[in-house]
Amino acid sequence: MSTMSTRTEKDFIGEKEIPAYAYYGIQTVRAVENFPITGVPVHRELITALAAVKKAAAITNMELKMLPSKIGDVIVMAAEEMMKGHHLDHFIVDSIQGGAGTSMNMNMNEILANRGLELLTKSKGDYFHCNPNNHVNMSQSTNDVVPTALRIAAYRLSETLLATMKRLQDAFRKKEVEFNDVVKVGRTHLQDAVPIRLGQEFGAYARVIGRDIERLEFANRRLLTINMGATAVGTGLNAKPEYIVKVTEHLSDVTGLPLQTAEDLVDATQNTDAYLELSAALKVCAVSLSKICNDIRLMASGPRAGFNELRLPPRQPGSSIMPGKVNPVMAEVINQVSFQVMGNDHTICMACEAGQFELNVMGPVIAFNLLQSLKIMNNGIDVFTRYAVEEMEANRERCELIMKQSFSVVTALNPHLGYNVAASIVKEALKTGLSLQEIILERGLLTPEELEEILHPEQMTTPGIAGEHFLRNMERL
Amino acid sequence: MSTMSTRTEKDFIGEKEIPAYAYYGIQTVRAVENFPITGVPVHRELITALAAVKKAAAITNMELKMLPSKIGDVIVMAAEEMMKGHHLDHFIVDSIQGGAGTSMNMNMNEILANRGLELLTKSKGDYFHCNPNNHVNMSQSTNDVVPTALRIAAYRLSETLLATMKRLQDAFRKKEVEFNDVVKVGRTHLQDAVPIRLGQEFGAYARVIGRDIERLEFANRRLLTINMGATAVGTGLNAKPEYIVKVTEHLSDVTGLPLQTAEDLVDATQNTDAYLELSAALKVCAVSLSKICNDIRLMASGPRAGFNELRLPPRQPGSSIMPGKVNPVMAEVINQVSFQVMGNDHTICMACEAGQFELNVMGPVIAFNLLQSLKIMNNGIDVFTRYAVEEMEANRERCELIMKQSFSVVTALNPHLGYNVAASIVKEALKTGLSLQEIILERGLLTPEELEEILHPEQMTTPGIAGEHFLRNMERL
Amino acid sequence: MSTMSTRTEKDFIGEKEIPAYAYYGIQTVRAVENFPITGVPVHRELITALAAVKKAAAITNMELKMLPSKIGDVIVMAAEEMMKGHHLDHFIVDSIQGGAGTSMNMNMNEILANRGLELLTKSKGDYFHCNPNNHVNMSQSTNDVVPTALRIAAYRLSETLLATMKRLQDAFRKKEVEFNDVVKVGRTHLQDAVPIRLGQEFGAYARVIGRDIERLEFANRRLLTINMGATAVGTGLNAKPEYIVKVTEHLSDVTGLPLQTAEDLVDATQNTDAYLELSAALKVCAVSLSKICNDIRLMASGPRAGFNELRLPPRQPGSSIMPGKVNPVMAEVINQVSFQVMGNDHTICMACEAGQFELNVMGPVIAFNLLQSLKIMNNGIDVFTRYAVEEMEANRERCELIMKQSFSVVTALNPHLGYNVAASIVKEALKTGLSLQEIILERGLLTPEELEEILHPEQMTTPGIAGEHFLRNMERL
Amino acid sequence: MSTMSTRTEKDFIGEKEIPAYAYYGIQTVRAVENFPITGVPVHRELITALAAVKKAAAITNMELKMLPSKIGDVIVMAAEEMMKGHHLDHFIVDSIQGGAGTSMNMNMNEILANRGLELLTKSKGDYFHCNPNNHVNMSQSTNDVVPTALRIAAYRLSETLLATMKRLQDAFRKKEVEFNDVVKVGRTHLQDAVPIRLGQEFGAYARVIGRDIERLEFANRRLLTINMGATAVGTGLNAKPEYIVKVTEHLSDVTGLPLQTAEDLVDATQNTDAYLELSAALKVCAVSLSKICNDIRLMASGPRAGFNELRLPPRQPGSSIMPGKVNPVMAEVINQVSFQVMGNDHTICMACEAGQFELNVMGPVIAFNLLQSLKIMNNGIDVFTRYAVEEMEANRERCELIMKQSFSVVTALNPHLGYNVAASIVKEALKTGLSLQEIILERGLLTPEELEEILHPEQMTTPGIAGEHFLRNMERL
Repeated sequence: MSTMSTRTEKDFIGEKEIPAYAYYGIQTVRAVENFPITGVPVHRELITALAAVKKAAAITNMELKMLPSKIGDVIVMAAEEMMKGHHLDHFIVDSIQGGAGTSMNMNMNEILANRGLELLTKSKGDYFHCNPNNHVNMSQSTNDVVPTALRIAAYRLSETLLATMKRLQDAFRKKEVEFNDVVKVGRTHLQDAVPIRLGQEFGAYARVIGRDIERLEFANRRLLTINMGATAVGTGLNAKPEYIVKVTEHLSDVTGLPLQTAEDLVDATQNTDAYLELSAALKVCAVSLSKICNDIRLMASGPRAGFNELRLPPRQPGSSIMPGKVNPVMAEVINQVSFQVMGNDHTICMACEAGQFELNVMGPVIAFNLLQSLKIMNNGIDVFTRYAVEEMEANRERCELIMKQSFSVVTALNPHLGYNVAASIVKEALKTGLSLQEIILERGLLTPEELEEILHPEQMTTPGIAGEHFLRNMERL
Repeated sequence: MSTMSTRTEKDFIGEKEIPAYAYYGIQTVRAVENFPITGVPVHRELITALAAVKKAAAITNMELKMLPSKIGDVIVMAAEEMMKGHHLDHFIVDSIQGGAGTSMNMNMNEILANRGLELLTKSKGDYFHCNPNNHVNMSQSTNDVVPTALRIAAYRLSETLLATMKRLQDAFRKKEVEFNDVVKVGRTHLQDAVPIRLGQEFGAYARVIGRDIERLEFANRRLLTINMGATAVGTGLNAKPEYIVKVTEHLSDVTGLPLQTAEDLVDATQNTDAYLELSAALKVCAVSLSKICNDIRLMASGPRAGFNELRLPPRQPGSSIMPGKVNPVMAEVINQVSFQVMGNDHTICMACEAGQFELNVMGPVIAFNLLQSLKIMNNGIDVFTRYAVEEMEANRERCELIMKQSFSVVTALNPHLGYNVAASIVKEALKTGLSLQEIILERGLLTPEELEEILHPEQMTTPGIAGEHFLRNMERL
Repeated sequence: MSTMSTRTEKDFIGEKEIPAYAYYGIQTVRAVENFPITGVPVHRELITALAAVKKAAAITNMELKMLPSKIGDVIVMAAEEMMKGHHLDHFIVDSIQGGAGTSMNMNMNEILANRGLELLTKSKGDYFHCNPNNHVNMSQSTNDVVPTALRIAAYRLSETLLATMKRLQDAFRKKEVEFNDVVKVGRTHLQDAVPIRLGQEFGAYARVIGRDIERLEFANRRLLTINMGATAVGTGLNAKPEYIVKVTEHLSDVTGLPLQTAEDLVDATQNTDAYLELSAALKVCAVSLSKICNDIRLMASGPRAGFNELRLPPRQPGSSIMPGKVNPVMAEVINQVSFQVMGNDHTICMACEAGQFELNVMGPVIAFNLLQSLKIMNNGIDVFTRYAVEEMEANRERCELIMKQSFSVVTALNPHLGYNVAASIVKEALKTGLSLQEIILERGLLTPEELEEILHPEQMTTPGIAGEHFLRNMERL
Repeated sequence: MSTMSTRTEKDFIGEKEIPAYAYYGIQTVRAVENFPITGVPVHRELITALAAVKKAAAITNMELKMLPSKIGDVIVMAAEEMMKGHHLDHFIVDSIQGGAGTSMNMNMNEILANRGLELLTKSKGDYFHCNPNNHVNMSQSTNDVVPTALRIAAYRLSETLLATMKRLQDAFRKKEVEFNDVVKVGRTHLQDAVPIRLGQEFGAYARVIGRDIERLEFANRRLLTINMGATAVGTGLNAKPEYIVKVTEHLSDVTGLPLQTAEDLVDATQNTDAYLELSAALKVCAVSLSKICNDIRLMASGPRAGFNELRLPPRQPGSSIMPGKVNPVMAEVINQVSFQVMGNDHTICMACEAGQFELNVMGPVIAFNLLQSLKIMNNGIDVFTRYAVEEMEANRERCELIMKQSFSVVTALNPHLGYNVAASIVKEALKTGLSLQEIILERGLLTPEELEEILHPEQMTTPGIAGEHFLRNMERL
């Protein structure tokens, strides 16, 4: 038996002992007992957003004379404290929980009620003077406040992520310029193809990240539509029409976000497509990033047994046993972040599909994964940009050397010699070790002057340069 | 040994016997030998789009005097035949194939060359007069023509799908109106919650499908940006600048679509995010649909041991053993289509992540899954709309009966009695079998007149009606 | 500038200031700077397993006279402290990290070296006397110690999970017995089908969980094969043959597990199939659990507008707004855990596919997801079993009532009347509201005595009972 | 209006015109109208397995005197025809269909009934003499015959796949031997690591495929347990106990497989874990294969700008534009097959999770994906083994050259010089272009003789060789 000082609280299921110091109450204690699942606390951004929701609701309820200002004022004060990150050690419910977020909502309601009671110099648990359900939760349901808080939290994290993505895009653009004069062997199927500029490759990375930003912005916009006032199922039962209008206005003020009430609250309460849409946008971006990091790791492979076209800044010794080894760890961590985001999207997809009738009760696992994806993508891209992209260097000598050794200029001969003849030259070169030029001259297919004119790798990297020799050579085919 | 009449063709790898009647040639035969994978032919829409690409390229090459019109004209004629669906039995490469679509492209090139030769009254295989690579594929690479054809095919299928989705949305809207007066028990957590109108539920379905349409349109728009002229890696090697401009114009004419050349052809050649974005939009829609079908199947459950709120038109006997059984088969097939689309999205995601450097060589499996998803969603939604949604009926008596038996009006008492008192009434009602009204009157909590005024389920389904009684009752709490 | 007391450490990349109190060193500090990703610490079970590995390696190195016992003894002591959970606040690297676990390994090596130095009364950072690489990591590489530790950690968590699953299986078996006499309407397609016993349903749940246990045991066994001695790539470079043999023996002693050295260390170092196999087994189990919980939530739906065949113990108020509402939260949390496990499996799958050559560098994200899946499944099943399954009750009256109202006995008439006649009876019953019996008698199809003999729902729930009447009635068809 | 000759059939829903030539009947026609989804027919192996099930059921029903032999004999004859692949053009229902396979089952029942009628010289549709439900489907339900047929089909395809996988494993083993003397630079993180033998790499591939075989065998075994006699929900309603025993015996005879009746038919009817388990085993194998193919594509990259350690047999020209280009198409197709199998597993997972109560109605989409996965893996591995693995060659000169240029031997110096000194040597070598040996001798760290003794790459590839120099050098550290 514990000697910890406690108070007794009661609900329609029974009684529980609550630690005397706790702002949380009986429903929180039940939830902690029921859901000891991940050990990971609810994302702080979701908690502070929920506090903002509670503040806006209390202001609105007071304005409409439904909530006495004596009670409402302390709820607002307590909510403001939580918005600043206070009392987080009283927000103890697990990230994954049954009940569609009722436990999160009640944990918040109980903290605000008890902190409110304290501000009123009443005893904790003396809910007559400030009640978690009747006062803090007035005009609300878990089913409108938790989704609204999740949208606000996700929106804010997305905005942060967007800024980070723009820095990455910018870093790629700078490398596009810096590497513009590095001509190298382009690769398709990992096989030597035709010349390309390293700058063009980084330009392509910048472009796809640009589209990822567009997609994220498109998905993000939708989060500003909320369902406050929906209460339990979207019919707004127990919420006054004026409340529905005003609470969104107040919440916009409190958060500084241009929030809007959903046109159809039943729809907005039961459907979770906005989260899945955002997650899908993150997934597409994760795929882009993973592909880019795979390229970068290949280009940085070596130093002697790999491509070695790119030099990444050394960030840490790469091995506990192999001396001097340096690994592309900043790219590797992005691959892993990407895989996590893809897996999280899968979880979110399953959870969204499991909605039934007026509600999707899988909200907590959706929130857990969505907010994690937003967070780790931001954190990962941030360090990747600063520690890898911005400081990487081209290995110009190596790119030039490989270019010279390769047959990647042969495609430019097609218009002059035809595909089949050109193919036979490559075949012979591979067999004999002779250069393309030597074979062409030996066979008398072109003059040295023609060859000189045709085979400029750097000219082959921009549309149509090689093609200009095409026409007058067509008859030879 | 076969006695089939054949001709011999040759490439830089060796020789092959080709059936004499065949328009396809040696590279097609190699591909068929190499890739006997799915047995499923390439989607017809992709084949006809590829033929359109070939036609536009030939016209452009002729216009720029690179391709003699004698040759170009027969290529155009042959391509037009394929656009109409002729010669499909010569397009024999498998849907899943190595080589990033080179085999698809060469199958097309060979058919057009040999059909062209036939039109020129030359022998098949006599490629001097019309060559698959040098003439049909002039100024092109697999890496620009196959992605361009895929975008056209996907765009067209998306447009068809969008029309089908709009019909579904419209059908849901009609049910929203038709079922507007059917008040029923709203459910959250599958537990009786508060009253809602059946029409409101169908309105929510219409709304989410509306957003699915928006998402699909947003993703679809991107497909109109193509990379013709990119050739092998996006640098446009062997394509004249004028060609790059004009081929897109001609292809727009040929297809009737407002196509645009990508700003950055290197980017457009290596990145596959447009496909993944489209697939992700389909996946979000699949999740919406699956949720809706789950609801409908639940509402139609019974007839005696289920909810039985909705009557679906009987489409087929539901059992080979249970007489008279009718199952919600049109909804079940949508669930399955949805699962397929989600799995296909996963495949596409893996394939897109596997891009390397200048190309993603997994194009064929991306095309296979993307086009299948578009097709089966369209087919599924079409029959679901016509055979299930448009003809379903509400079981009004049953909805009313359940409404009466339930406690779903109790939430409206919160403002009058407080959450805890209301909870105790429900608990007692469940235990004793008494109605809420009886207990309230017995306890003297409200007068019969007050009860009469408060407990109108149909009024509880629109925001704030119940809430108007709130204020004057606050002091009782 | 910080005034915190620090020491300076150095590696081949440069220098860093380390907090003077810290057991960790320069490589840990680099990793913390590089990988501020999830904020979630490495799973404790993995840390303690890694400490066990270090202990076993030190003992073996001492035994082979490679490591002076003066140094080895303090490494062993420090490792034992970590195995007990001490110094966890010095294990500060993030769960998701680049570098295949080198940062985890070095964090451990540095803690043990510095704690060892302290035990030797030397200064922290004075690595001449006890070196993280040369002494603590002697004969080891990240690439053998981290996978080995992961296998041990996963095995232990699996064993715990298996015990929890067995308790669930047992709980289902008890319900199978307890509910054996509850005859109810069996449902297929959510439509009324034929009679079944509630106990049979729970028996089926017990059986599938039994197979899940088998699958998990099969997968788990493989984790006992480890790659200690593989060092960097499996060739055992820098590890003596005797070391390879003995270190596994010592590690078996230290952990109490029957570990075995892999037959092929190159294979065991590069391949991650054992993790994916385990994750796949967890996923199959997650799917079983999610299906079962969906059934249970349906059976517990209501109380008035749902099936209401099952009563779950109330665990917490189900709504912040709807009084008296109780939700099936313990089942809902299992659905969410299941979705998380499925998503984690996807992440693990992507990560395993990304292995290259001698190593899969995505180990950290694999470990993060695998250990999380094991943990949350165990935690979830534990509370689900205790708080939901063991205490649930059948609503016998309700099952009986629905049985009576339904037509689920009609299939038993097939052998007597034929499928088509039976179907027409159901159709008429649905239309007229008459009972099956009334229609059959009215049509003179069977006598009252025959009906009495045939239509016993409880007899229809065991193979062949109804069928015994079959033969003599065949001629009527 | 069609002038095609038809007959009219009727069921409890209404009437339909059926083509006079058709063996299928009204329920098939309804299904074709309801489910025009994929256009892909049901897998042939599933159709023939279903025919085998029908044959065994008819034999059993005759043996138990429930089915007159006159009727039963023609059902058996018709079923035997279908087992041989006849009448497949009458099996016209789509792969994806609502109704849990009822349409598949009825398509088979109708073909057998009408073909039976023909054999009896009766008119098609004259079901009094041979009825699809009462005679062909006697003692059966879709819910036992379709799952049983799926298990038989999946088992057979798995057996074929296993043989193909063994050939691949064998091919890898042969390469392990053939490449045993090719010492090359081992790579971790794509960075040069330590020496390894090419044979060791292929040995690792053989080993993981070996475990994939084990996993598949383990999963496959479970398919031999069937639920014949379960009828609708597993209670065996309308099936005699003797039937349940005997039908499995007869089906074992008919198929030649050692089938067993499930211990618990309710479990076996509602749970689909056996399919998901098999799919999961395929997925793990797909991941192994994809990783191996990624390695092979990297090793074959080049010829000049890549690793170029491996030479794959050229299978087809690799480009429509780049002459002489040869791509690793046989490996690429395996990557794509692997992605497809992973996506299919996802679809199957979603479908299995969607089971409800006594049945999982998503059977058709499960079957579609599972059988496709089995088929394409078999087809893919078969051509990959024959066209790529068995004929690949090591590029020995290239492996040796890279080995010499690299610093991968440096790790062997750790025991002699310590990790930090060795790291500084690598750093200097990279900076100065000097060899490790030159720096070591210059710094006087080792004698030429010691160097000669230590730095044998080929000796570094087997455990402990290098380590034997360890002990006597420890004091230097």
